[in-house]
Amino acid sequence: MTQTIRPAVQQGPLSPDELHKMNAYWRAANYLSVGQIYLLDNPLLKEPLKLEHIKPRLLGHWGTTPGLNFIYVHLNRIIKAHDLNMIYIAGPGHGGPGLVANTYLEGTYSEYYHNISQDTEGMKRLFKQFSFPGGIPSHVAPETPGSIHEGGELGYSIAHAYGAAFDNPDLIVACVVGDGEAESGPLAAAWHSNKFLNPVHDGAVLPILHLNGYKIANPTLFARIPKPELEALLVGYGYEPYFVEGSDPEQMHQLMAQTLDAVLAQIKAIQHRARTGGDTQRPRWPVIVLNSPKGWTGPKEVDGQKTEGYWRSHQVPFGELASKPEHIQLLEAWMKSYRPEELFDENGTLLPDLAALAPVGERRMGDNPHANGGVLLKDLRLPDFTDYAIEVDKPGTGTAEATKILGKFLRDVIKANRRERNFRIVGPDETKSNRLDAVFEASDRVWEAEIVSYDDHLATDGRVMEILSEHTCQGWLEGYLLTGRHGFFSCYEAFIHIVDSMFNQHAKWLKTTRHIPWRARIASLNYLLTSHVWRQDHNGFSHQDPGFIDHVLNKKADIIRVYLPPDANTLLSVADHCLRSRHYVNVIVAGKQPALQYLDMDSAIKHCTKGVGIWDWASNDQGHEPDVVIACAGDVPTLEALAAVDILRQNFSTLKIRFVNVVDLMTLQPTSEHPHGLSDWDFDAIFTTDKPVIFAFHGYPWLIHRLTYRRTNHPNIHVRGYKEEGTTTTPFDMVVLNELDRFNLADDAIDRIPGLRNTAAHVKQMLKDKLIEHRLYVRKYGEDMPEVRDWQWPY
Amino acid sequence: MTQTIRPAVQQGPLSPDELHKMNAYWRAANYLSVGQIYLLDNPLLKEPLKLEHIKPRLLGHWGTTPGLNFIYVHLNRIIKAHDLNMIYIAGPGHGGPGLVANTYLEGTYSEYYHNISQDTEGMKRLFKQFSFPGGIPSHVAPETPGSIHEGGELGYSIAHAYGAAFDNPDLIVACVVGDGEAESGPLAAAWHSNKFLNPVHDGAVLPILHLNGYKIANPTLFARIPKPELEALLVGYGYEPYFVEGSDPEQMHQLMAQTLDAVLAQIKAIQHRARTGGDTQRPRWPVIVLNSPKGWTGPKEVDGQKTEGYWRSHQVPFGELASKPEHIQLLEAWMKSYRPEELFDENGTLLPDLAALAPVGERRMGDNPHANGGVLLKDLRLPDFTDYAIEVDKPGTGTAEATKILGKFLRDVIKANRRERNFRIVGPDETKSNRLDAVFEASDRVWEAEIVSYDDHLATDGRVMEILSEHTCQGWLEGYLLTGRHGFFSCYEAFIHIVDSMFNQHAKWLKTTRHIPWRARIASLNYLLTSHVWRQDHNGFSHQDPGFIDHVLNKKADIIRVYLPPDANTLLSVADHCLRSRHYVNVIVAGKQPALQYLDMDSAIKHCTKGVGIWDWASNDQGHEPDVVIACAGDVPTLEALAAVDILRQNFSTLKIRFVNVVDLMTLQPTSEHPHGLSDWDFDAIFTTDKPVIFAFHGYPWLIHRLTYRRTNHPNIHVRGYKEEGTTTTPFDMVVLNELDRFNLADDAIDRIPGLRNTAAHVKQMLKDKLIEHRLYVRKYGEDMPEVRDWQWPY
Repeated sequence: MTQTIRPAVQQGPLSPDELHKMNAYWRAANYLSVGQIYLLDNPLLKEPLKLEHIKPRLLGHWGTTPGLNFIYVHLNRIIKAHDLNMIYIAGPGHGGPGLVANTYLEGTYSEYYHNISQDTEGMKRLFKQFSFPGGIPSHVAPETPGSIHEGGELGYSIAHAYGAAFDNPDLIVACVVGDGEAESGPLAAAWHSNKFLNPVHDGAVLPILHLNGYKIANPTLFARIPKPELEALLVGYGYEPYFVEGSDPEQMHQLMAQTLDAVLAQIKAIQHRARTGGDTQRPRWPVIVLNSPKGWTGPKEVDGQKTEGYWRSHQVPFGELASKPEHIQLLEAWMKSYRPEELFDENGTLLPDLAALAPVGERRMGDNPHANGGVLLKDLRLPDFTDYAIEVDKPGTGTAEATKILGKFLRDVIKANRRERNFRIVGPDETKSNRLDAVFEASDRVWEAEIVSYDDHLATDGRVMEILSEHTCQGWLEGYLLTGRHGFFSCYEAFIHIVDSMFNQHAKWLKTTRHIPWRARIASLNYLLTSHVWRQDHNGFSHQDPGFIDHVLNKKADIIRVYLPPDANTLLSVADHCLRSRHYVNVIVAGKQPALQYLDMDSAIKHCTKGVGIWDWASNDQGHEPDVVIACAGDVPTLEALAAVDILRQNFSTLKIRFVNVVDLMTLQPTSEHPHGLSDWDFDAIFTTDKPVIFAFHGYPWLIHRLTYRRTNHPNIHVRGYKEEGTTTTPFDMVVLNELDRFNLADDAIDRIPGLRNTAAHVKQMLKDKLIEHRLYVRKYGEDMPEVRDWQWPY
Repeated sequence: MTQTIRPAVQQGPLSPDELHKMNAYWRAANYLSVGQIYLLDNPLLKEPLKLEHIKPRLLGHWGTTPGLNFIYVHLNRIIKAHDLNMIYIAGPGHGGPGLVANTYLEGTYSEYYHNISQDTEGMKRLFKQFSFPGGIPSHVAPETPGSIHEGGELGYSIAHAYGAAFDNPDLIVACVVGDGEAESGPLAAAWHSNKFLNPVHDGAVLPILHLNGYKIANPTLFARIPKPELEALLVGYGYEPYFVEGSDPEQMHQLMAQTLDAVLAQIKAIQHRARTGGDTQRPRWPVIVLNSPKGWTGPKEVDGQKTEGYWRSHQVPFGELASKPEHIQLLEAWMKSYRPEELFDENGTLLPDLAALAPVGERRMGDNPHANGGVLLKDLRLPDFTDYAIEVDKPGTGTAEATKILGKFLRDVIKANRRERNFRIVGPDETKSNRLDAVFEASDRVWEAEIVSYDDHLATDGRVMEILSEHTCQGWLEGYLLTGRHGFFSCYEAFIHIVDSMFNQHAKWLKTTRHIPWRARIASLNYLLTSHVWRQDHNGFSHQDPGFIDHVLNKKADIIRVYLPPDANTLLSVADHCLRSRHYVNVIVAGKQPALQYLDMDSAIKHCTKGVGIWDWASNDQGHEPDVVIACAGDVPTLEALAAVDILRQNFSTLKIRFVNVVDLMTLQPTSEHPHGLSDWDFDAIFTTDKPVIFAFHGYPWLIHRLTYRRTNHPNIHVRGYKEEGTTTTPFDMVVLNELDRFNLADDAIDRIPGLRNTAAHVKQMLKDKLIEHRLYVRKYGEDMPEVRDWQWPY
């Protein structure tokens, strides 16, 4: 089933001249890599190496770098030979020096960064800037041309690679997977992405598992299981493995070249069979296993300790250059072993016959536009979202399922962009459960695994992608967006925390790329968090967690947006806005259950445009300062807050109540903290400067305090939200357990309105009685009291 | 390589009588499962089923349940036959009704919950309580006897199972893995845990991959790849797969029994070879693949739509009982198909010859003490942590690496508990990098994969567990703690977010079990977050994130503790405290780099006991109200805050400065919010009621506001912390980028101290100049100015 190319086969495909040149090119990349880690000056070693030429602080990772360089030079060869459209993903992103070296050698780097020219002075700057204050990061960061994958946090390379390949039929994504990274969960799951890649409409992913052997201080599991076991694993994942193993450069060059020829032929054959032969069987895509020593070509030993082929090569193989003069000699000898004088001319420019090995223009992997997706990005064709509006004659009386309405809009987004093939929806098996199933009228779910006759909206081609791995969903979508397309991720609210750390990395990428002039902006990453905390009464405590918002808000204000549309029309308006936006992470929290509707489309658009506003129809303080402000954010809190207003109005007829709803959570922050923040003047005008504010919030209550602590009226803002109480129970019992229910909110208001406190004893008693009545009712019938369940806005 | 037992083999091992009884027991479990989902009354169907007997709201998951029940009855058989010590982990924890049914049938449930007796009345209560307000959750929640794994969030079953098996040589952990769950990253990685299980000292894990075929609305990947591919995958993961496939109950019983006999024999043989034969080769442990229909024995069709063996069985296979009377008949027919009259006597008690199939006492999986680990928990033997104290003659003058000191203490914790084998350290390849490597003097890293001669502290037996999967580390540790042992997780601060969601689930488990009387408290989950944000200058932006504290604080105050020891002695004191504690999640944040030391051991103990305090030696307001309070939490902020005090004192000799350090972050909250919270009186005494407070914080600054917004002096608290600025640079440049450095802190103080503001222009200019000087210096030399790097407390 597998095809192992044995070292014995040494003839071809490289001619002696080609072999010699490719090895020279590789030496050049390795030389530049070591130079970046170590040197401040004397870049070509034209004078004897001295301490003053060496960086005082040595930062960087050598171990993985020669392997990354080896792969790069070989990919260059097949790109050139076959005019391939290829990008390079470096799973072990800490091998940054290698990718920088290669994009420098191919010329891209100097085009993006004119100061880093292809001469001695430029090389000196190239060396100095690496991992240096004011310079560039140590990883394959956004600053690196050709990168869509920093590889700082490990585990996402394969998912990113597939995301890039989807709907890019001409693209081949070479994806180096570190054997350390391969131990991580997200990576272990992402191998299965091949069951979602359509050989007709999508490009190819070529995973190259780099068996480098070691992590920081340990061997890797993948390098320490018998080869047949590793082979079985990859076959089990659905691939056909090709092994390239050894350490002798010449042999390895021939092996790698031969293997890449074979692998490329296989990819082409698969695509040909599918594209012209109509073969719909899931192909067995090739994977290369490159088994080469960690720190290959580096020092074999340092101070008598094994270094090449061992974990000691992981970062900087040796330091202490100030205290150990022999280490300076060791460094010089190491760098000279690459024979720079045979690689660069007098001016420090790569010799022309070596430079000729690289592809040209956008075929260079550093300059491939797919790796700077914003330049390829086209606006989505969006239907007019107001066409999907539901009628709201009287606020708070009719019901609808917000996400179901959204589903119709998304269905037509899919339809409108069918030809462009630049929009996908991802989710962990929840599109239907989250009631977005109208999308299946426009598209099936992609599924290249076996399909049976009674399967439901599964097809080898489709815009909806479902796998029970939030990690894989997130990774695919990131890869898809980073290569210039659009997408939408719907997820159970509690379980989006699974990708907290991936979100962090993407947010950091967005933050950094805002300040890199040549990086074009990409489409926003849009999350719809539904099946949210207040309506996971049926699944219980484990499914109840609204904390993703808190997590998101720790990232830079200029890339973070959080929306809590209270009903269907506001959800439509928000979703339309998010799909048009660029370079943000948009988090939308909205329920899927039937719920009261409040705003007609005109009102919804106005409200969402402002982000926060007084709902006049729910207020009775017109033209006056209110006695109390009832505020809310989120669909269920809005319902409870309105019902609380009803209670208050029924019991205190002269009370002036102002009702405020927040759609855009960022409006609560000061303008100094977030561009959406209300001015203090506007905030005070809405929330008053001294009246009690009862705030019913979707998430953890302290988030509202965090956002508003600088506001004038903050001492009077009393927040109710989720306080980590829950179980399997009824929807209304969920709000009661967390004291976010109408009775508790009304009681909170009574406690805080001056003058009322002492005269409202009977109302307070009534509220207590209601809570007891509720408890008895749900324990008896297992469902909510009709008066609660069927409540409507009565005014 | 694999051993498939084909359906053809139908003879034995079950006698006709045994087969008949086991099938009856299974029917009983299925009957009780359906009853829990649907019925309020009429539990034995002695009268015709009517709408009033049926719950108005139907909540629960049927699809996986018959499979879970099938496995349970078969495990009972081999437990009884071989007197096995076995626990049951249900990966698809939403099959809660099955586990409840089985623990009820075996008698455990009624022993834990007397009200749910083994008679008609008890059965009625059993049915009603399920997913019902005031009753029990729908999952295999902590309320379920025998559970250490709720299975609400999917993906952690295998890691939990291995965690339970470590150091329990007599235990077999049967672990049902759902084929939905199997798509998740954490699960995909955790299969490799077999490279860490020592067959001599550890127990066995028996994974049972349940090919149920469908998720919520999709087929599963594992059920839709060719069988040889699945087989290869499991072989690649290092297992020997046994397939049990079919749908005919009788055939399936024989197959499953036969397979379990074979598998158990293999486990015993492996253990025998290792334990008496000294065989140290990694064995190929068995795995069972159970391929049975989703919703097995449930309705084949509902309203003409395929249900059994399809995703429509996932939750409640049909509802609408009020509107469709035929559904009541369908339910009655379905439940009667299990022939309850042949299973339960007149009183609703399981017939004695069926009851006799279950094991007795603690051999019942619902009553196995390992599944209530607190009852087995023994205190750790702890060396006296003060023996590891470093001498601090004069605060802020000598340096040490805090985690290195801690490593020595942990080394001796390992030594002291070597015989008990009840303490493990986990981490993603970072024990050495995090400078805890003294532990290797006491123990190696466990490694059952291949070992070569030059490997470093790898052995088949050891207390340290490293895999490059934070998910697996966390899952192992949870399983280990839940079964009554102790542990310690060291991790890079930024990447602990990878387990945010797992932490959530564990915190929810701890919260819930605090209120279940029969659940004994377990050891705390201790995190050491090191390689933290301020000292990831070398790895760059992707490695900088202090937000785990924010995440943790969303969980219930009574289980959350966060410590920021500023130096080595305080770290020792905190670590000792954490290792003694019960049922908490303790988060310790501490650096690994050489850093100034402040407190001798006596002072450290006093300081840590209070959690927050004035450092008199760093203050000059003795006996007076200060002009300013300089506060800090975290090691690097403490350094910068002290250096800021130095600047202020040098430039404003009459200024009265109070210096406050916070070790226990929870002290900042009001007592009403957290048991560690300072009283307002105490808080005011330390932080004053009206003086400016400059607070240098390790994490995101708004966290301090969130904790203190109710304090009198909150309006005067000015916080600096990480504001998401970073790259690869120098350590001091990191604090400068985030304005947490001494110069900015001093400047902040000057701006806020009344009277000083207008006279301090030259000092402010000097501070600006210093920042420029710094910038020029690092850009030139790539390291920090000596005056900053070598600063010591000069008083």
